[in-house]
Amino acid sequence: MAVVYLDNNATTRVDPRVVQTMLPFFTESFGNASSTHDYGAAVAPALKDARKQVQALLGAEFDHEVIFTSGGTESDTTAIFSALETAPERNEIVTSAVEHPAVLNVCQNLERTGRAKVHYIGVDGAGALDLDAYRAALSDKTALVSIMWANNETGKIFPVAELATLAKAAGALFHTDAVQAFGKIDMALKDTAIDLLSLSGHKIHGPKGIGALYVRKGVKLSPLFRGGKQERGRRAGTENVPGIVGLGAAAEFARQNLAEDFARMKALRDRLESGLLAAIPLARVNGAGGERLPNTLNISFDYADGEAVLHKLDRAGVAASSGSACASGSMEPSHVLRALNIPPHALQGAIRFSLSRETAGEDIGKVLAVLPEIVANAREKSPLWAEVRPPQVA
Amino acid sequence: MAVVYLDNNATTRVDPRVVQTMLPFFTESFGNASSTHDYGAAVAPALKDARKQVQALLGAEFDHEVIFTSGGTESDTTAIFSALETAPERNEIVTSAVEHPAVLNVCQNLERTGRAKVHYIGVDGAGALDLDAYRAALSDKTALVSIMWANNETGKIFPVAELATLAKAAGALFHTDAVQAFGKIDMALKDTAIDLLSLSGHKIHGPKGIGALYVRKGVKLSPLFRGGKQERGRRAGTENVPGIVGLGAAAEFARQNLAEDFARMKALRDRLESGLLAAIPLARVNGAGGERLPNTLNISFDYADGEAVLHKLDRAGVAASSGSACASGSMEPSHVLRALNIPPHALQGAIRFSLSRETAGEDIGKVLAVLPEIVANAREKSPLWAEVRPPQVA
Repeated sequence: MAVVYLDNNATTRVDPRVVQTMLPFFTESFGNASSTHDYGAAVAPALKDARKQVQALLGAEFDHEVIFTSGGTESDTTAIFSALETAPERNEIVTSAVEHPAVLNVCQNLERTGRAKVHYIGVDGAGALDLDAYRAALSDKTALVSIMWANNETGKIFPVAELATLAKAAGALFHTDAVQAFGKIDMALKDTAIDLLSLSGHKIHGPKGIGALYVRKGVKLSPLFRGGKQERGRRAGTENVPGIVGLGAAAEFARQNLAEDFARMKALRDRLESGLLAAIPLARVNGAGGERLPNTLNISFDYADGEAVLHKLDRAGVAASSGSACASGSMEPSHVLRALNIPPHALQGAIRFSLSRETAGEDIGKVLAVLPEIVANAREKSPLWAEVRPPQVA
Repeated sequence: MAVVYLDNNATTRVDPRVVQTMLPFFTESFGNASSTHDYGAAVAPALKDARKQVQALLGAEFDHEVIFTSGGTESDTTAIFSALETAPERNEIVTSAVEHPAVLNVCQNLERTGRAKVHYIGVDGAGALDLDAYRAALSDKTALVSIMWANNETGKIFPVAELATLAKAAGALFHTDAVQAFGKIDMALKDTAIDLLSLSGHKIHGPKGIGALYVRKGVKLSPLFRGGKQERGRRAGTENVPGIVGLGAAAEFARQNLAEDFARMKALRDRLESGLLAAIPLARVNGAGGERLPNTLNISFDYADGEAVLHKLDRAGVAASSGSACASGSMEPSHVLRALNIPPHALQGAIRFSLSRETAGEDIGKVLAVLPEIVANAREKSPLWAEVRPPQVA
């Protein structure tokens, strides 16, 4: 079992304090929040508190703008379907080529079934969005823009506040998949024109199976789940009370130390980045230009097979990723790195290290100690490496 | 706080043994099941085991027929949408007038938006389905039948195996919302023609926020959530590992003592029923004819306001319900009881007691001790009661 966990963009360890806040809601305050008796009534204040905790971390104006869901994928799906249903006179979606599959696959399916026309905005080699193409794609046909706040593979942060203002001017709703950004950066949502935002518990040391969709006051929502009247009729289904309480607690812990955690993670990530670039020739950071999440490093080692490197890292006690966990196992090069136009001999060698507030200095030291030799060994297996090996590399 | 909990059809206490099985997956084996490193690989066997545990309680043929979801509402929604999408040449749904809102509201919305024609099959005074109307509604236009296995308010069990065979003969898919039946009765699903089945964890002493959709091998599914490749591409989203493990454990505990729990709950329910009928005049059991879940008693006390009775019960330490928790708070008479044609002076007095395997004999004794006086007091408040009070009632 790996002991250094640097795959926090895939999922995080639940904070033991979060688990403690959840426990009473399994076996003691276990009532259905919709029930009128004491067992049910006891959980309503807990749901209210959690909603306020999520609101606070978002910097949203009202707690009722937060709707609890089963996670980021449900939130994304709800936002996209709702935007199309509430604006029947518009049938176009503007999104980016580097979205999470939870947005991209929904859009592609809507296109395939003729229910929407989708514009996929590309990025440059540094991962920055093509703003001219974005502006050109917006029109009075645009029902929804869906652009992620930060990319899960590279950590690249998109200028969502600016993008949202442009979308608003075109009369379109603006949704952002903020699953990776939530809890890592200050959002101040109420000062933006963002209409809809997806977030998830398990990326911020909260539980899996819980998330939320932020819906700005005044924005019409067409529910994906219709049934009971939970969440003011906007998301039917018995509330996942322990999950909601856990998400609230995780949001609260993230908010309390947001600036410190940001600075600490960034310092460690920068140390890892500069250390690897210094120790390993022909290494390149993917999506490095401009603003990035403080915890993410996506780095390619030319001519080193990424899967082989990851496997060796795992055996050496370091857990990392070759890209999005949701797409891994498929061995297809990541759609995000392809959009960055990374050359083929670097594509296969991309590794994502994603830190958390639990990451320690010795974790970084461990990677710096083991990775150079692992990469060197992997390169020996490449028939091309002998030809291109720089003279200074032994 | 009420100490006698008889609202188990709303939700159940999570079995402390279930919580124990979940705990390691929050803080130790917390990896993303889709990740390739050891942290991720460690959770795959746990998901497999849970799938087999649910399969066993269903009596299904293959474990991969079980798709984990966030609960009954998501399962119902997925089944209905999928049936319409995979049979574009059919656009009719046959359902019952007494379904859970998670089926009924989806159907009503599909009707309202012109996406489907829906047949709502009625029930008789005992809650039995109108089989002639059911047969007449089936045609080569029927995409889906959705009839619940057991009713949440009355406990009435529908002959789903027989109904599924008739649906199959018409070329339609058959879905059943089995949220209340799962874990209480033997299902032997593989011997039926049921194509799709919804179940939920929190009704069987498992956690909230987790459920499953059974999809018979060979039945095409159009996913509601598209994104990552989880659940063989049939339900995107990071797996709720602790929830899935908890649902599996809850299914296993339910299966181990299914027959004993059935007999014990039924004996206690029958004692409650006969005791109340003997002690309280003008009481009537709703949906009593034919097969019923062993844990459910829906009983009306004519001219006694149900909300007042419930409130007094709560203060006396007994938690029960006036109907479906999902609809309570609205004060509208339950659509289920209205479908049974219960007279208005009984409708408002309906109380649902729902037991679990944790219900003890003294719980029943407590209700029998306090309820007659509570009902008598509530009746004193009714202007009609003075006129109709039977001469033998003091």
